[in-house]
Amino acid sequence: MKADAAQLNDWLMRIDTFNATPGEGTTRAVYTKEFYRAREYLKKEMQDLGLEIHEDCVGNIYGEYKGCHPEHPPVWTGSHIDTVPHGGRYDGMAGVFAALEVIRMMKSDGYQPKRSIFVNAYAGEEMSRFGMCCIGSRAIVGRIHQQDLKDARNMAGESIFDVLSHDGFEPERFNRDFSTKPRVHASLELHIEQNRILQDKGISVGIVTGICAPTNLRCEIHGIQSHAGGTSMEDRRDAFMASAEIALALEHLAKASDSEYITGTVGAMKLDPDAANVIPGQANFSIDIRSISAQDKDDLVEALQEKIDEITRNRGVTYQLEQLNNDTPYICSPRIRELLHESAKELELPVLDMISGAYHDSLMLGDITDAAMIFIPCKDGISHDRKESIDMDDLAKGTDLLAATLRRLSEE
Amino acid sequence: MKADAAQLNDWLMRIDTFNATPGEGTTRAVYTKEFYRAREYLKKEMQDLGLEIHEDCVGNIYGEYKGCHPEHPPVWTGSHIDTVPHGGRYDGMAGVFAALEVIRMMKSDGYQPKRSIFVNAYAGEEMSRFGMCCIGSRAIVGRIHQQDLKDARNMAGESIFDVLSHDGFEPERFNRDFSTKPRVHASLELHIEQNRILQDKGISVGIVTGICAPTNLRCEIHGIQSHAGGTSMEDRRDAFMASAEIALALEHLAKASDSEYITGTVGAMKLDPDAANVIPGQANFSIDIRSISAQDKDDLVEALQEKIDEITRNRGVTYQLEQLNNDTPYICSPRIRELLHESAKELELPVLDMISGAYHDSLMLGDITDAAMIFIPCKDGISHDRKESIDMDDLAKGTDLLAATLRRLSEE
Repeated sequence: MKADAAQLNDWLMRIDTFNATPGEGTTRAVYTKEFYRAREYLKKEMQDLGLEIHEDCVGNIYGEYKGCHPEHPPVWTGSHIDTVPHGGRYDGMAGVFAALEVIRMMKSDGYQPKRSIFVNAYAGEEMSRFGMCCIGSRAIVGRIHQQDLKDARNMAGESIFDVLSHDGFEPERFNRDFSTKPRVHASLELHIEQNRILQDKGISVGIVTGICAPTNLRCEIHGIQSHAGGTSMEDRRDAFMASAEIALALEHLAKASDSEYITGTVGAMKLDPDAANVIPGQANFSIDIRSISAQDKDDLVEALQEKIDEITRNRGVTYQLEQLNNDTPYICSPRIRELLHESAKELELPVLDMISGAYHDSLMLGDITDAAMIFIPCKDGISHDRKESIDMDDLAKGTDLLAATLRRLSEE
Repeated sequence: MKADAAQLNDWLMRIDTFNATPGEGTTRAVYTKEFYRAREYLKKEMQDLGLEIHEDCVGNIYGEYKGCHPEHPPVWTGSHIDTVPHGGRYDGMAGVFAALEVIRMMKSDGYQPKRSIFVNAYAGEEMSRFGMCCIGSRAIVGRIHQQDLKDARNMAGESIFDVLSHDGFEPERFNRDFSTKPRVHASLELHIEQNRILQDKGISVGIVTGICAPTNLRCEIHGIQSHAGGTSMEDRRDAFMASAEIALALEHLAKASDSEYITGTVGAMKLDPDAANVIPGQANFSIDIRSISAQDKDDLVEALQEKIDEITRNRGVTYQLEQLNNDTPYICSPRIRELLHESAKELELPVLDMISGAYHDSLMLGDITDAAMIFIPCKDGISHDRKESIDMDDLAKGTDLLAATLRRLSEE
């Protein structure tokens, strides 16, 4: 049986109704009303398919399709259902419902796998609300501890721990829920590409060879706030102009790097006092560096720091550079990639090996199991935006590959 | 009689108690509670000195020290008492209380001028709250009309007209109050320099030769919002990187200009969505260009626009550039400057001819009368900042020069 594009579309449109900003993209931040309603919807769909639902204290959902040997380590699939503000309908959700469609197909075919297959929805993959990405999958693999839930806070100053407690979860159960890492045979996640390579090459399915991981820094420039008219160009200690020069240096270094894939982004910028007639005395901005190679990232950070030293010295301003995280990239399981290629061949599906520039829950899951990913194209590479769009036939093809490969994995 | 530094300091400290952010600089935005209280305080001090107080419907205060011939056009002096957020104690206030001290000295000396001398406090010189600078002096000289009070709004969406009505002024009287331009013999304003030239040269008093005027533009860059990891450096249409390049181009053009004095500033920047992990799809920023020469400003804007064309074309982004205002610089009255030099010589006060990079109410007043300005140093050139500071002896010397020159003008 082949994946049903109409069924996939129906699920994706239904979950999209749980949206804080209808008409202005999809906004479903982790641990908000819309997120909780979307969870209830997903659990109901899982129940309708006969999955056994497990949950934990950070809001991960695990839907178990029982195999003949449920005592063997299961195969995991799935993705996330939270979104960035004013984001798209597919980033995360495509992978969750592709997984559900696989189960629907297996049931229709009367197929029961050897190992159980879990359809998972990991909580809070997007970083936007609490400054922490992949909350759920980080908890599962042991990258965060209970204290981290208390430290990570939203703009209102509430911690994840506070919010979970308030909303009826029991975050004090954290140590019990996550004391031992689960034994998982393999993990395979479908996700939209968030780049335009597949579209440009006219290929419907990508096989991810490795997942870039972000190094995030926060840079603070201290200049001298003064009057835009009264201060001559020579006398300025302009925190913004220094920041602009640093941003362009980052861009230049990333472009000039001979890394296989590396990016440098300044996405957030706050000037103080941020007034048209005042030279900014302070600038705070984000630096996001991603690569498939940990070494290349470290080299770029080092080169950037040299440039920051030089730029700030020349401009007579000072800076603070704080490293928020430096995650290790993940090389996807060669074994699963081989199975993916074999399955694609069988399905007569042209595929492309490719790097994931974005991180995903699979980056975390790689800590505890063999993990791999399937990409499908998204229109013009646009993601994290209301204009995010996919072709349902591509999703159906990706789902077919997911189904075939999950079968192989669950028979191992 | 010489100016009394202690008296000046006393007034300046007293008016500074009307402050919305005690301990964090002085915040006294136009038409706020603190502004109104400061007005009441100033009027009381004027009354104590026997000045006759006039007011108008936008909150200007005119304190008249009657001359023997009050029917002749008077001489005006004074400045403003509103501040930027978290600003200083002297920007504006120094000129108002120096003027008051002149009257106190004249009264102590038993001196009555021929022409009346007006100590004025012009309403809303700072642009911060309603996006309009010099509200009071603009109204006086006819640069704004009643409709402009309805169009200029604060962040809460309230117009100046609304706020004035609510607070008991009668803005509907605008046409009556400002139908004819006042006949003024001359205007002389003392102000802090807001630059460090006087301090660096060790001179206590500057004579302003000309006042730069701002050309303000708003630039909006439209790129493509996309995922910081998923989008390769080549595929980006990064609105912020384009903005950074434009800002540095502005800086370069201002530095490279052979104008006698020209500045270019990007003081405010708003990225959308302003998230660390998203490439900005849109950037909005302010451009502030000031010069003593209208031609040099126009040339700079033209050169900048060429650079913006080039930068956005190369980066595959688009832009909108809106000119908010393009005020004409003012060459201070040569006649008054001559009197200032003569008075300084008499007082044995070393002075420096200098340009004002910042605009002042005098820039407006130059429309209707011969206007000139006296500068006194401020520490390290810092202004529009809580660290703004002056030496009271400098203020006393500036006040002596103000007194001597006002005497000469009022005898003409």
